[in-house]
Amino acid sequence: MLDPAVGIFGNLTHKSFKPREAWSPGTKNQMPEVKKFMLITLGEELLLGLTANGHLTYIGDQLRQRGITLHSNYTISDEGPDIEEQFRYCWDRADVLITTGGLGPTVDDRTKEEIAGVLGEKLVFDQSILANIENRFRGIGKPMSENNRKQAYRPESAEVIENAMGTAPGLWMSKDRKILIMLPGPPNELQPIFENQIIPRLEKLGYVDEQENYLQIKTIGIGESALENQFQSIFQQHKNLSVAYCAHQGQVDCRISFPDIDKNKSKLLEIAESCKSLLGDDFLCFGHRSTVEVVSNILGKNGLTIATAESCTGGLIADAFTNLSGSSEYFYGGVVSYSDQSKIRVLGVPEKLIQEESAVSSNVAIAMAQGVTEKMNTDYGLSVTGYAGPDGGTEKDPVGTVYIGIHTPSGTLSKRFSWKSGRLVTKKRVLHAALDLLRRKLIAEKLNVVETFENRIEGASSSR
Amino acid sequence: MLDPAVGIFGNLTHKSFKPREAWSPGTKNQMPEVKKFMLITLGEELLLGLTANGHLTYIGDQLRQRGITLHSNYTISDEGPDIEEQFRYCWDRADVLITTGGLGPTVDDRTKEEIAGVLGEKLVFDQSILANIENRFRGIGKPMSENNRKQAYRPESAEVIENAMGTAPGLWMSKDRKILIMLPGPPNELQPIFENQIIPRLEKLGYVDEQENYLQIKTIGIGESALENQFQSIFQQHKNLSVAYCAHQGQVDCRISFPDIDKNKSKLLEIAESCKSLLGDDFLCFGHRSTVEVVSNILGKNGLTIATAESCTGGLIADAFTNLSGSSEYFYGGVVSYSDQSKIRVLGVPEKLIQEESAVSSNVAIAMAQGVTEKMNTDYGLSVTGYAGPDGGTEKDPVGTVYIGIHTPSGTLSKRFSWKSGRLVTKKRVLHAALDLLRRKLIAEKLNVVETFENRIEGASSSR
Repeated sequence: MLDPAVGIFGNLTHKSFKPREAWSPGTKNQMPEVKKFMLITLGEELLLGLTANGHLTYIGDQLRQRGITLHSNYTISDEGPDIEEQFRYCWDRADVLITTGGLGPTVDDRTKEEIAGVLGEKLVFDQSILANIENRFRGIGKPMSENNRKQAYRPESAEVIENAMGTAPGLWMSKDRKILIMLPGPPNELQPIFENQIIPRLEKLGYVDEQENYLQIKTIGIGESALENQFQSIFQQHKNLSVAYCAHQGQVDCRISFPDIDKNKSKLLEIAESCKSLLGDDFLCFGHRSTVEVVSNILGKNGLTIATAESCTGGLIADAFTNLSGSSEYFYGGVVSYSDQSKIRVLGVPEKLIQEESAVSSNVAIAMAQGVTEKMNTDYGLSVTGYAGPDGGTEKDPVGTVYIGIHTPSGTLSKRFSWKSGRLVTKKRVLHAALDLLRRKLIAEKLNVVETFENRIEGASSSR
Repeated sequence: MLDPAVGIFGNLTHKSFKPREAWSPGTKNQMPEVKKFMLITLGEELLLGLTANGHLTYIGDQLRQRGITLHSNYTISDEGPDIEEQFRYCWDRADVLITTGGLGPTVDDRTKEEIAGVLGEKLVFDQSILANIENRFRGIGKPMSENNRKQAYRPESAEVIENAMGTAPGLWMSKDRKILIMLPGPPNELQPIFENQIIPRLEKLGYVDEQENYLQIKTIGIGESALENQFQSIFQQHKNLSVAYCAHQGQVDCRISFPDIDKNKSKLLEIAESCKSLLGDDFLCFGHRSTVEVVSNILGKNGLTIATAESCTGGLIADAFTNLSGSSEYFYGGVVSYSDQSKIRVLGVPEKLIQEESAVSSNVAIAMAQGVTEKMNTDYGLSVTGYAGPDGGTEKDPVGTVYIGIHTPSGTLSKRFSWKSGRLVTKKRVLHAALDLLRRKLIAEKLNVVETFENRIEGASSSR
């Protein structure tokens, strides 16, 4: 069993985030040598905007959890000259170079061939790769097509990293005092390889941390500079404390560390507790959890259940809850009531209320939250009604106006928000606002929300 | 009014996708000079996996619609030396270089400063920018903080591109026979600037197409090589025809074009019609629509309505429908029934059925689809029940097993699927499978689904 506090630690010394040098005098020269990780993602579908670059998000996140900030990411086509030029550039500069894609059986897949060419390596036929491919085809009861033989070649000095989910194996090469890692493109093939085989190898080499060695304080609802000002009163009392901030999507994360983390752990935890006290409700959590994970954690720990009633978010909140493995224990379900009729028929919102106050109103939000709580037989209900745009809205409540409603065993509340973003961005913002409003309500109800270091939710994260 | 056929055309000559040279003899030298577009996206939150690189997807998609394939994308931190090195590299190679982020008021925002340094330009204070910023702050009734003055500086030869949604203006520079475009980082600021101001300027210069000049045939449920084989019988009859394929997420798109597009338009449309006939139900659409847009279009054109009942997808299908602006006309709502209780209480699934056949079964899928159709008072109902994992499942129906149910005015059907991917990937796959099954059912019901060139849904796309 790991130390329960481990989960909240990362490695600040690896210059994750933006360190505020003024607060970390003397720590600079004590940093261990940090390896430079670069990532080349291949595929025209990325450049054409057909597919999001999920590999960047995934690999960036994985490395971050092990104390490494990915230095850079290069997205290029799978044309030979583009691969060659980008590979040369990165190979000159990286300590660890990761490529994704272009290991398939077709003529467009030439990552291996181009890179072997640059490195002056021959491609050799590997009987063990072929055996694996043949095995796979036998397993699914289909004949192996001839072009799959192409996948059985590897650069002569490359080691094969087995791919349990597909025919193209990963490849690992140690050359010129650098590491080259070539991974297949499909996420369901790449991700198990990366977590189960690449990370352990990098850890063994000391290139990534075995565990995190900074402490992260996540905040919500407070700006970066205001947060800096608040925390300074605490931080200035501690010499050698490293501090770094990162703002993203309405949240600011703060990481703190001491040069000798093992000796100073209890001091660090004390400082973190002071920060937490100072923040009040703007404190989200220690560690890496998202808002939906924090909310789910509070509900789960207290044996409470919830249901959602969504109009303009159209299922996005339910989707966020159900992205978490195990969510069926506290999330019983939701109603997407996109028509007035469905609000009336399924949620039991009084028709008269909609006529008198319109479907986008405080009282309808509350009636929706009440209705779904009753229908789904839960303790809590969270509702959203608003105008996501581009059409709709009234003079009083223009496009971007949203009412969020909460029903709890002790009463109801609703809050009005207003945004001026496009349809899809507004949906996301409403999601975050609704979850945060619920979180604040749960805290106000004085539930058992002791934020200790061990109560992280492990497993699937909604950000993946 | 544009030619109704315009919407399905793009510019193939710009070497979008991967051209099959064998099928386009003689066209190579007739291609106009294509400008090289490069994109630098700045921000450590991208490299840390905290935020997806939405600018790549958005700008890639925008350019694709105007006949340009983005050459490459570079994601880097906002450290000065990184910006300088990457900018030098790209400025040497690009015709049009776009940067996003780093134009804000804080000390970490140094895109402008670094780039001006490389180009040997002074930063000059621009009174008109300051006036805009002051205006904005007056509008929201807050005092302008002093550091916002930093945003009023611009490289001396840069033109200001007004930002209606934020304080940092875009910048446009024409220098060394290249174009440099610097855009602010927040998507709701960047996107209107790009569509309303950047694209028209690029069009005026002839750098992007006024309209698309290829014809795209989207297919679903057929592999790339099988598709190539099928189409070859048609394509080989036409000399000078350019053909290109792109496979993504279970779909393969095929683009066809002739060198002189205006003279050969009707011939191209004829070829496209032959392809469509050959494909049968595997034909998705002409143009750029996604499966949810195609399904929505069929429903909308026929005045039909739908509701969803989701277990393991947890709201993802409802979210996809409601990402489309105007969807409230045919999408009345959905139920996320994540507990047995909610299936019974809200959807009216018989408790006995769940006990006898389990919640993940063909008959429960059908009962869910029927139940939601009745509750939401719609014509169609689409349901999903399955094990997204990592826990759950039975010997007969292991994790990854999903039943999709459809209720229609003329009857019901269900289909069993099985995947071996992780929770979130499985959710996405079920989404695509459910929408495609519904599409095939709508076609089988011989609705008015004439796929003409004008029945594209304009506006928001779920892929953004």
